Amino acid sequence: MMGKVFIVGAGPGDPELITLKAYNLIKKADVIIYDRLVPKTLLEDTKAELIYVGKEIGDSKLQDYINELLVEKAKTNSIVVRLKGGDPYVFGRGEEECIYVLSHGIECEVVPGVSSAIAVPAYAGIPVTSRLTNSSSFTVITGTRADNKIIDASYIPREGTLIILMGIHVIEQLERILLSVRDYEEYVAIIENGTTEKQRVITGRLKDLSKLIIDHEIRPPAIIVVGDVVKLREKLWKLT
Amino acid sequence: MMGKVFIVGAGPGDPELITLKAYNLIKKADVIIYDRLVPKTLLEDTKAELIYVGKEIGDSKLQDYINELLVEKAKTNSIVVRLKGGDPYVFGRGEEECIYVLSHGIECEVVPGVSSAIAVPAYAGIPVTSRLTNSSSFTVITGTRADNKIIDASYIPREGTLIILMGIHVIEQLERILLSVRDYEEYVAIIENGTTEKQRVITGRLKDLSKLIIDHEIRPPAIIVVGDVVKLREKLWKLT
Repeated sequence: MMGKVFIVGAGPGDPELITLKAYNLIKKADVIIYDRLVPKTLLEDTKAELIYVGKEIGDSKLQDYINELLVEKAKTNSIVVRLKGGDPYVFGRGEEECIYVLSHGIECEVVPGVSSAIAVPAYAGIPVTSRLTNSSSFTVITGTRADNKIIDASYIPREGTLIILMGIHVIEQLERILLSVRDYEEYVAIIENGTTEKQRVITGRLKDLSKLIIDHEIRPPAIIVVGDVVKLREKLWKLT
Repeated sequence: MMGKVFIVGAGPGDPELITLKAYNLIKKADVIIYDRLVPKTLLEDTKAELIYVGKEIGDSKLQDYINELLVEKAKTNSIVVRLKGGDPYVFGRGEEECIYVLSHGIECEVVPGVSSAIAVPAYAGIPVTSRLTNSSSFTVITGTRADNKIIDASYIPREGTLIILMGIHVIEQLERILLSVRDYEEYVAIIENGTTEKQRVITGRLKDLSKLIIDHEIRPPAIIVVGDVVKLREKLWKLT
């Protein structure tokens, strides 16, 4: 009998921001294959075999290894949980793993999580949309596209909140692209280790973005927010 | 002694997609003030006074009433939970309520939820981003902006996944704006009552969007997804 694979979002970092569905699966799992950004306390409440796959080995090689591991483990275990930081479908490659598992005749279900793209700004006192600042949309991008090129201007709307994940390592190139579409004086916030006790928030203007990141020695994981919503931070609840 | 207000996301519809933090607050709450789209089963496991505020009275009048109710209830209760569908900061006006409560000297904390914008497509077999289709970003918009004008083209990037919340009531105007920026042949999915047992999914091309919605008598709540990620639906896990 084949087992079933669950591709599960663990949320943004605060262990309490996991879903009930994910929490119950962790408790029932036979095997948990987990990433670097999964809150460690979540793994204390399980009888499962724990396999860490967040090592920094070659990207495509690691993905092939994870895909094969999911299939192999599902052949001899009932419940295999693939636990990922944030949400599996927000730059999480959950779809690649799910397609691979299904192509081997094994059941696979995706369990959405609280996305870091929305919750990390929230814990910094920044709503991604707001009527108060006429922020009627938000766009989530990463620094580099699937083909490893820097994201280009066609993905960036002129108006609305902009949220950048995994952009720190290419920040100088990214800044030039942002400034080709957006206003130099727009507000920005940089949030390091969001929703955790180590959360750190730096704010400023778009024209100074890369300088702020270098001067404050910001390290991944960090999220950048661009737009008028950043101004609301002074008025709202935030993690302190 | 003043109580504390929690502005809480209830998730997209599947009651199991609520966070542990929200679930524990529901159990401890003295008062729960809840919306139309909150899963009803979540309210069975509480001793709280339940107040429904999803009625269709005038929008700004209703918001004023809710704001005042939060403050009034926090004056005589320890834990007041304001429970909203999805995430409080994704077109949820959570920031308006939080600022109002804080301005009255009452503590207010925001608890992010699983956003319908991401989880509803996931349950329909559609990831919002994917390397497989070179979908390197996603943008979430509503049909109407804060000033009640239709959203304009400056909020819509030429590339990347587009997710439209609350667009059904203005679909013909919206379709014209979408077609001014995006390709007529782009794939679209329309998801009604996403993540629930009543989920219904219609797919087609952007040029036929309003016709599909009218022909299939789609009713709110419904979410529209535009982009190549819709093609992955045939290969992925989906709620059936």
